[in-house]
Amino acid sequence: MKELGNGTVVGILGGGQLGLFLAQSLARLGAHTSVFDPDSQAPALRHTARPFSAPFSEQSRLLAFAEQASVITYEFEHLPVHYLAGLGEHVAKIRPSLKVLEVAQDRLIEKKFLKAGGFPVVPFLELKDGDDLAKLQAFPLPILVKTVRGGYDGKGQTRLNKQADLDSFLPRLKERLSAGEVLVAEQVVELHGELSCIVGRKAKQSFLMPIFENVHQDSILDTTVFPAQISDELRRQVEELSTAIATALDVQGLLTVEYFIVKEASGLKIYVNELAPRPHNSGHLSMQAFNISQFDLLARLLLDLPVGKIEPISNACFAMANILGDCYHDKRLKLEALADAEGLVEILLYGKEEPRPARKMGHLITTGATVDEALTRARAVRLALSGS
Amino acid sequence: MKELGNGTVVGILGGGQLGLFLAQSLARLGAHTSVFDPDSQAPALRHTARPFSAPFSEQSRLLAFAEQASVITYEFEHLPVHYLAGLGEHVAKIRPSLKVLEVAQDRLIEKKFLKAGGFPVVPFLELKDGDDLAKLQAFPLPILVKTVRGGYDGKGQTRLNKQADLDSFLPRLKERLSAGEVLVAEQVVELHGELSCIVGRKAKQSFLMPIFENVHQDSILDTTVFPAQISDELRRQVEELSTAIATALDVQGLLTVEYFIVKEASGLKIYVNELAPRPHNSGHLSMQAFNISQFDLLARLLLDLPVGKIEPISNACFAMANILGDCYHDKRLKLEALADAEGLVEILLYGKEEPRPARKMGHLITTGATVDEALTRARAVRLALSGS
Repeated sequence: MKELGNGTVVGILGGGQLGLFLAQSLARLGAHTSVFDPDSQAPALRHTARPFSAPFSEQSRLLAFAEQASVITYEFEHLPVHYLAGLGEHVAKIRPSLKVLEVAQDRLIEKKFLKAGGFPVVPFLELKDGDDLAKLQAFPLPILVKTVRGGYDGKGQTRLNKQADLDSFLPRLKERLSAGEVLVAEQVVELHGELSCIVGRKAKQSFLMPIFENVHQDSILDTTVFPAQISDELRRQVEELSTAIATALDVQGLLTVEYFIVKEASGLKIYVNELAPRPHNSGHLSMQAFNISQFDLLARLLLDLPVGKIEPISNACFAMANILGDCYHDKRLKLEALADAEGLVEILLYGKEEPRPARKMGHLITTGATVDEALTRARAVRLALSGS
Repeated sequence: MKELGNGTVVGILGGGQLGLFLAQSLARLGAHTSVFDPDSQAPALRHTARPFSAPFSEQSRLLAFAEQASVITYEFEHLPVHYLAGLGEHVAKIRPSLKVLEVAQDRLIEKKFLKAGGFPVVPFLELKDGDDLAKLQAFPLPILVKTVRGGYDGKGQTRLNKQADLDSFLPRLKERLSAGEVLVAEQVVELHGELSCIVGRKAKQSFLMPIFENVHQDSILDTTVFPAQISDELRRQVEELSTAIATALDVQGLLTVEYFIVKEASGLKIYVNELAPRPHNSGHLSMQAFNISQFDLLARLLLDLPVGKIEPISNACFAMANILGDCYHDKRLKLEALADAEGLVEILLYGKEEPRPARKMGHLITTGATVDEALTRARAVRLALSGS
């Protein structure tokens, strides 16, 4: 086991809120942190004495960042792998590996990997050339067409509900394919619910976090509750799948697996939706609910510290609600509402200057005797903060 | 109410663990932070993009620090007030005020202030000149003689248990008084227990944290438990006294009040032991146990955010155990013990490089169904970490 506090520097690629909270967990274990983000206003850059802000293409800066780091991780998966691959001997410091990153940052590679591994995914179709247009027309509606790279929080998605939508989309699609773009069409399933499971992994050992239950609005995570209201059988399936996927990818660090629950004739069935090899928005309430948060877990893995059993601190139920830029009026929240926010156990504001619509500006966590009570309170506090 | 994330910079004097955790709470509310510490290795300096490291006497650096800060606070009270007083218009940014700092950093001024205000303190004696030696000889043993300034964690204290101790101490004392030193003699009371209460205050409004119960070893905080095992009547007295003292000092920010519980013929009686106008070691478990930690509370006060009711998140009981340098062998903890640490909900390592005896290196927090269970677990984890 390494000794801490004597110069261990963890480099974090990406300085958003996930990077900030990871840096805080690392600081609480005595480590130094360094942050690289092309946006000089990124929140985590403010809270490190080793900030690096440059485009990823500026190889000399990226190399300087890599050289001073003992280990490197990332807080979002849309990183230019080719630049990172140019870091020579320092590539070995990156956790999870570039191989994992390549799978998780491309929807098509990800889906193919999952399907090939026998993991349940909803039917999808690769859209690459003219031949694929015919296949798309035979594909059952409704359909979600997504860019294979760079999309998150619903960006780069087109939903086709009926034949007319498809007909009007086809000419544009044809153009995009001709221009060399690759897309993926996904069958839209009717959701009974959504889950996420965060698994940590070091060498061949996996560490599962308790499962979260999520609700998205317009493809952006809206709320999460804990504990997830699911059967033991579903819980077992999610845990097995998450561990198996992390193992198949040989993840060293964190992997978040998002799931759809679909009601089928045979009962509730789960499908893997997406992979994120990093801390995840749906894991925020681990900071309040568990003995080891998702950020603590990753910090321990990166610092080569033992993990132990991850478990809830109490029997309380929790809910997390994202605060998007949409909640702001005149660029501000009605923070006065904090004075009588019932059940509120955490309010985090990420310090981003521009509260654009759909931009994640903060989140809040409430507690309650039941998940419904916690969730009702979370929504009420958010509503009050938005001045409604 | 001010808007955050748009350039609010909170300056923190002192970069130890208390400064670091305060900076983390501020970061979680979107604020920028800046840290000033003469020791360039201070933990909090690593986690800010605005570090200042210089002696306090370097007025130009102190001024530069003050100029870029919207508001200034401190994480320890042994600051040279005369240098801070030289900051001109920026003095008004300092919270709590220099007046509070002057009272809290001098044991004699503090005791006189408390006595004059009618707050219960154990009998004490000012030792200034030769005349006071006779008074000391008439003072009931055992006695604790303390320096009036700069002492913390038992530093600068001499305990006189019996007449022989006093006799052998007197010549040295005489010399020190001749050299112009001022000391204070305190009657040693037999402790039934110790408590602390942290009160936040903004304008004329006070915000009380739930009370902690503490145990010291060799004058250094050893363990804290929550909830304190005290009667409602004692709780009421502590709350009233803490609020009254913060009000008398017109504290803007945090005030920690430490109490002795003494068993007297009439029942349990409480005495005020010490004041600290800042977050406090005994408040660490507020990070896990309460909806608003002591650091969150101070952050909200400094950022002019509403506070609301401070309360436990659950019915769980908690214990905190300090990890001193004494727990280290060959400059390391046996961190392998984390793998099966029962009931552990937090382990914090401050990242200090030199694990000297009696130096606070970290702390851990455990939970349990009772405070005894939590405390037993905390001690067991610490023992395991120390390799015993």
